[in-house]
Amino acid sequence: MQNMITVAVDAMGGDNAPGEIIKGAVLAVQERKDIKVVLTGDEDIIRKELGSYDYDKERLQVVHAPEIITNCEAPVLAIRRKKNSSIVVALQMVKNKEADAFVSAGSTGAVLAGGQLIVGRINGVERPPLAPLIPTMNGVSLLSACGANVDARSSHLVQFARMGSIYMENILGIKNPRVAIVNIGAEEEKGNLLVKETFPLLKSCNDINFIGSIEAREIPNGAADVIVCEAFVGNVILKLYEGLGTALVKKIKTGLMSTTKSKIGALLCKTALKETMKDFDATKYGGAPLLGLNGLVVKTHGNAKSNEVYNSILQCVTFTEQNINDKIRNNLNKNE
Amino acid sequence: MQNMITVAVDAMGGDNAPGEIIKGAVLAVQERKDIKVVLTGDEDIIRKELGSYDYDKERLQVVHAPEIITNCEAPVLAIRRKKNSSIVVALQMVKNKEADAFVSAGSTGAVLAGGQLIVGRINGVERPPLAPLIPTMNGVSLLSACGANVDARSSHLVQFARMGSIYMENILGIKNPRVAIVNIGAEEEKGNLLVKETFPLLKSCNDINFIGSIEAREIPNGAADVIVCEAFVGNVILKLYEGLGTALVKKIKTGLMSTTKSKIGALLCKTALKETMKDFDATKYGGAPLLGLNGLVVKTHGNAKSNEVYNSILQCVTFTEQNINDKIRNNLNKNE
Repeated sequence: MQNMITVAVDAMGGDNAPGEIIKGAVLAVQERKDIKVVLTGDEDIIRKELGSYDYDKERLQVVHAPEIITNCEAPVLAIRRKKNSSIVVALQMVKNKEADAFVSAGSTGAVLAGGQLIVGRINGVERPPLAPLIPTMNGVSLLSACGANVDARSSHLVQFARMGSIYMENILGIKNPRVAIVNIGAEEEKGNLLVKETFPLLKSCNDINFIGSIEAREIPNGAADVIVCEAFVGNVILKLYEGLGTALVKKIKTGLMSTTKSKIGALLCKTALKETMKDFDATKYGGAPLLGLNGLVVKTHGNAKSNEVYNSILQCVTFTEQNINDKIRNNLNKNE
Repeated sequence: MQNMITVAVDAMGGDNAPGEIIKGAVLAVQERKDIKVVLTGDEDIIRKELGSYDYDKERLQVVHAPEIITNCEAPVLAIRRKKNSSIVVALQMVKNKEADAFVSAGSTGAVLAGGQLIVGRINGVERPPLAPLIPTMNGVSLLSACGANVDARSSHLVQFARMGSIYMENILGIKNPRVAIVNIGAEEEKGNLLVKETFPLLKSCNDINFIGSIEAREIPNGAADVIVCEAFVGNVILKLYEGLGTALVKKIKTGLMSTTKSKIGALLCKTALKETMKDFDATKYGGAPLLGLNGLVVKTHGNAKSNEVYNSILQCVTFTEQNINDKIRNNLNKNE
């Protein structure tokens, strides 16, 4: 018999909670017999929503957590004060090994702070990177790191590279993933102080396939599988990716709707265009993992729909089955 | 009689030199009677190229500069050693007030290093920002700064904001331009050390319209007119803008060509799409100025065509006519 993997899901986090979150959780339990989901949040609200679905009640449970942490609250303070929030209750389950992983579309700050404060880091991990997948012309790359945990040291970046590499090899199945550091030119002598300090360290790592610097221009071309950077820079990359993508698509739509002739043309192109643009959507791979914790914490987009929640739950299953954390533990023990 | 403005142009720099560069220079002289252009580079090559054009020989001259600085050379060393290069000869003209400005599509590093070493900074300017214009949904924003001059201090960023503001007000005609600092969230307490240090300084500047933080997601929406950041981050923004734009357009073309139906649709949309996408092209405003020098140095794209060269020459004229450098000088004297 296969092992059952338990994923705690924050039913109250995100713009489309609880409806889309619960829909995604139900879908995961319906589709896969090896998954157990625990929804945390206001029990009455969740039960009411669940009423419209048919599912295995043994494998989809509810744990009451009446408090909600909002995006406006200071993350660390909120984690400390709101012990009965959907986020804290779920993270406690991961800490106590009652759950293998946690998925939330709620406050990024609270999820990241809580992951570190409650679940805790793997021994030897200096800083856990939030590592989202970003779409490229030929697939997807891992951006390690991105988030609120800025002003990293070079030793952090080396760990971001190692953990990112393990993730891409085992979760995405990319053999010997190409690791590159974000820089302002391809030459080794270019860069800011942090990059200049990190470059030779990455070069001397025998356990990763370091290919050197990557200019931001090359990221959308999929020029590396793991993109290493300090979280402030990673945040700029991720947000600009989203913002520019949306802006260009809006611009193109305006163009298509601008003349009668183009409107007819647009009708004819619509299906084909939609199909191609699907490739440029990273949500099908799930959310962004916070790597290096004693468990797994996955942050999905604030506007996540059921499909992204479903994919994030599946991502947790692969992560657990592949023993990613043991691999990270072994790698760090061997190298540090 | 109006004043004649002299622009030195590097005839040998860029992927399309000398053909497109010379074409752009001829165009500028043909279109405007108040412009004089001095082309620097190999005289024989330039004269041969000029042979096919009709132009006012008084206002389009050639200064022989047989050496060429390539992209592969270390910038500072190349500037020091190649005294007879098209870049150094032109910069010397700006220094000696024989030219008001310099335009080059050549090595960015050499142009920036040479601008500072030869032309020199305005008294009080701590660091000259390279400030390209980037396209947005409703026009264009100035990215101050972007380039190789990384690891800035907060006082540099304040000057980037001031100079950028003067540029946008006087060159683009945007009254009271909105200035924002690139950050990972909208709240004042967010950011890395540099941003946290710079934020209150910008807030206390009475001479600029500081509107707070801008997330990278909002840049394409034109949420600020002057986008202040450290040059490493600015470089990532600029390069990702270019790379992602190209990648998405390529993806859309693939989509349009994927079925017979979509191919017919594409034919009908083509003109309208092209027209709309023109808005998303910042080269019509010219190149990126290096602000804060005793003169003006403009870096155009390496792949600049005649039209961008032409627009860059016009940009130099407006810059000189508007006495931007006097305005920068007065502003710094008043505030520091």
